[in-house]
Amino acid sequence: MTELITGIGELTTHDDSGERRHDAALVIGAGRILWIGRAAKAPAADKRTDVDGRAVLPGWVDPHTHLVFGGDRSAEFEARMNGQAYAAGGITTTVDATRAATEDQLVATARRLRHEAEEQGTTFLETKTGYGLDVASETRSARAAARVADVVTFLGAHIVPVGLDRRDYLDLVTGPMLAAVRPYVQFIDAFCERGAFDVEETREVLLAGRAAGLGVRVHGNQLGFSGGVQLAAELGAASVDHCNYLEPADIDALAAGTTVATLLPACDLSTRQPFAPARQLLDAGVTIALATNCNPGTSYTTSMPFCVATAVLQMGLTVSEAVWAATRGAARSLGRDQGADAIGSLQVGGRADLQVLNAPSISHLAYRPGVPLTGAVWRTGVRVER
Amino acid sequence: MTELITGIGELTTHDDSGERRHDAALVIGAGRILWIGRAAKAPAADKRTDVDGRAVLPGWVDPHTHLVFGGDRSAEFEARMNGQAYAAGGITTTVDATRAATEDQLVATARRLRHEAEEQGTTFLETKTGYGLDVASETRSARAAARVADVVTFLGAHIVPVGLDRRDYLDLVTGPMLAAVRPYVQFIDAFCERGAFDVEETREVLLAGRAAGLGVRVHGNQLGFSGGVQLAAELGAASVDHCNYLEPADIDALAAGTTVATLLPACDLSTRQPFAPARQLLDAGVTIALATNCNPGTSYTTSMPFCVATAVLQMGLTVSEAVWAATRGAARSLGRDQGADAIGSLQVGGRADLQVLNAPSISHLAYRPGVPLTGAVWRTGVRVER
Ligand SMILES: [Zn+2]
Ligand SMILES: [Zn+2]
Repeated sequence: MTELITGIGELTTHDDSGERRHDAALVIGAGRILWIGRAAKAPAADKRTDVDGRAVLPGWVDPHTHLVFGGDRSAEFEARMNGQAYAAGGITTTVDATRAATEDQLVATARRLRHEAEEQGTTFLETKTGYGLDVASETRSARAAARVADVVTFLGAHIVPVGLDRRDYLDLVTGPMLAAVRPYVQFIDAFCERGAFDVEETREVLLAGRAAGLGVRVHGNQLGFSGGVQLAAELGAASVDHCNYLEPADIDALAAGTTVATLLPACDLSTRQPFAPARQLLDAGVTIALATNCNPGTSYTTSMPFCVATAVLQMGLTVSEAVWAATRGAARSLGRDQGADAIGSLQVGGRADLQVLNAPSISHLAYRPGVPLTGAVWRTGVRVER
Repeated sequence: MTELITGIGELTTHDDSGERRHDAALVIGAGRILWIGRAAKAPAADKRTDVDGRAVLPGWVDPHTHLVFGGDRSAEFEARMNGQAYAAGGITTTVDATRAATEDQLVATARRLRHEAEEQGTTFLETKTGYGLDVASETRSARAAARVADVVTFLGAHIVPVGLDRRDYLDLVTGPMLAAVRPYVQFIDAFCERGAFDVEETREVLLAGRAAGLGVRVHGNQLGFSGGVQLAAELGAASVDHCNYLEPADIDALAAGTTVATLLPACDLSTRQPFAPARQLLDAGVTIALATNCNPGTSYTTSMPFCVATAVLQMGLTVSEAVWAATRGAARSLGRDQGADAIGSLQVGGRADLQVLNAPSISHLAYRPGVPLTGAVWRTGVRVER
């Protein structure tokens, strides 16, 4: 079955040849993009979908979420909005609730959130462990994550669980816990921050993951100058996430390497942190991605459109830059923007992950903030049910 | 036909006796609220709707929109996001497109936007003229507005149209134009700002409107210390809107009177203005309202949930304060929060304008920013079609 999508008012491809075409159509089939070209030259297809002047773009790629958790932290959120500061220790609340949940409960919550994300145009999604923090709970979380997400990251090094010795916990994370989760995960990650892990501890965890064949991600420089960003650059990590506090040397290190800076605007708002210096990073030549960081403590949103709007309205990105960061940039942070399995762009041979906006242009994502603009969404060529 | 709404996880009434009840149910019928009380004591009704633990609250009241316009200003928006400053003169673009539109075209655009607002929980909405700026076009706009909105405001004094003498235009606005629109409008308004009208001009317009029996609103202190806020307080205006630049004397004047300060967070973001000092206003005892200011130039959103989330995350309001400002505060700014036709609260005898969130608490409006949380919406007791 092939499907011709035509009547496109504006097509954003993020291929390497240019973007925002106004005369284009595309044909999808067998989960792939089969043809892109001028609408007037479109080949025949089994089915024809006219999008009536609307904008078409790649589906969002959300490269940083924590969907596998139990419980809720709305009370902590309201207390924070009433003036209480954010501290990493709030994670413990979620750890207790996650340990108490069954795998099926964890999967049900994560699936509900994934579905909610899809309804807002997200077609590819990473998620992390990190609320189990013992071997059985992390393994259950990793298995649950693999049942829901496209890519799974092992975040045993989220915090040291209450009552455990740091050294003992590091030995556990880099030894039996890593071995137990290994079948379910593609990346390792660590929270390099005061109250979590220092640079040397983070390095030890990441190198153990790399030795086990995993890609490397880092939570760095969210609440202060943690050293996580420079460590990520030094190790050639795929991504360093948060990046709120950056010294010139941090930006230079990122600019000199290939590590993507993944920025989390909804988290910055929810924790009342200053936004990451997105404009400075781009101007220095750093590749950036946008992600929701969906989690019950610091950023309980699945909305990539909200992140894109915030990046434009408040972080100084142009609309094109923000959309690129939320699609192809996000794919690059997962090592998935090139080759046969490429996502985050619309190219012949690539995955047919795309969305239609109920608007004539991607500019409306920031021009009309808060308005639900997601129209039809296709994931591997299949329409997502609404 | 009466309808019992039960299974309410959290009921926000904004009546004078307290809020966020967890054991309540309500009965609506003939467009009114007939009963509110403990679910266990609910009377029989013709129909029973179980909302399964979700939060119920009054429908949003949007007290400041400009829905009657032609054209689009997405190009100007993108230029602004690329660094160009906002200037009031951009209004001229919309004036040209509005004059070129037929009344039915204006109504169709405004209805589409009103429907979009309703889908996000807005059950009562003010809109303004102000893109016609000649007698025929302002009259057509006022008539179109009256076909769509609950309350209509005459904003002939939006800017002096290109090519007209200021004195001649003020005579027109306060004379023949006011007379022509009078059958369709309930309020008069003027844009008191550099590039628009000064304090004395604004006063002349507002007093002419008042003499014609209209309520008074003011666009004030959006781009600088325009004097509009103190004029509004002096005249006992129902509302002064924007309020981005306030001196202590402005806050004192509002605190001493009854004028509501209507804040427009989405507009502040879209024009890259500093947010209005919401917390300072509340702490001084000023009544505040939230509105979208939906218009194609400076705030093209219909989303009251986005305004509420922004007010909490970035303007220092608590969730309860923001929800109150977007419902009962907004009703007060329209002189509609008391009496038989009261809106913005849930009270026996009041209008059955209410919404269900797909969430257990109003805290989720800020805890989960960008996520479309609007569930069922009732307007005068009738379910809004989605
Ligand atoms: Zn995270
Ligand atoms: Zn306005």
